[in-house]
Amino acid sequence: MTAATAARKATVNTVGDREVRIERVFDAPREKVWRAMTEPKLIAQWWGRGNKLDVVTYELKKGGHWRFVEHSDHGDHGFEGRFAEVDPPKKVVQTFEWDGMPGHTCLETMTLEDLGDGRTKLVTHSMFMTAQDRDGMMQSGMETGMNQSYAALDRVLAAL
Amino acid sequence: MTAATAARKATVNTVGDREVRIERVFDAPREKVWRAMTEPKLIAQWWGRGNKLDVVTYELKKGGHWRFVEHSDHGDHGFEGRFAEVDPPKKVVQTFEWDGMPGHTCLETMTLEDLGDGRTKLVTHSMFMTAQDRDGMMQSGMETGMNQSYAALDRVLAAL
Repeated sequence: MTAATAARKATVNTVGDREVRIERVFDAPREKVWRAMTEPKLIAQWWGRGNKLDVVTYELKKGGHWRFVEHSDHGDHGFEGRFAEVDPPKKVVQTFEWDGMPGHTCLETMTLEDLGDGRTKLVTHSMFMTAQDRDGMMQSGMETGMNQSYAALDRVLAAL
Repeated sequence: MTAATAARKATVNTVGDREVRIERVFDAPREKVWRAMTEPKLIAQWWGRGNKLDVVTYELKKGGHWRFVEHSDHGDHGFEGRFAEVDPPKKVVQTFEWDGMPGHTCLETMTLEDLGDGRTKLVTHSMFMTAQDRDGMMQSGMETGMNQSYAALDRVLAAL
């Protein structure tokens, strides 16, 4: 990992009162990023930021469900949702919710943009049901956790 | 069934650009309405409006999941969601989505108000993720189907 990679942070911007747009560039072609983001064995290597992750369910198709359980020193945390749209290797639309706040569903649209130079930009647009849900997520330490996950994803991509 | 009951319709009002508020009075005390709305064997008698309904999953607690499959002449339709809050005998908050549009989640808050004269008012507040989702649901024939379901629920309550 270069110093530049180590320092890389995702760009996080709020949109309106209940949306968030996140951008992050990865030093890998789109097909590799797609694989790392959609193959359960690879997801398990980065999504948990170093914590053990069980990919309990992962049905990558419209209407399919997904469920992850992250095991940390502070306990187990379940996350789940359903796929609304799957368009390899460039787009996934899915719902997301954390077991700790069931029913507080977020709709995530993730797109992978081929930058044409071997790099790929991931844009994640998250729409929450309420402004409170969005602001709660922003204040939860989400950004730190996400940057840890993406740093782990950098390492998975480098090893692919 | 009296003529008055046969003619009874739910009151449906849009709120803002992505919410709907529905009110319906039932000629039964709150505890009976709660039972009919939350016991799988009773749900199966009215929710499908005369169509066979399989209550596949029904975990009535915060974080629990529910899933119904309605079998009609036009095919099978699955509906599912998750309970965000369960407060017997007066309140259930749950997500709702139809298999035909996965990921288009709606958050439903259902409250039962004891009218003090043996009747109960059900108020359902539905919050959709987008105005398009709300308007699509309004134009789907939802109101007719709902009134059929509630008429069937009247009959279940009369027989309890």
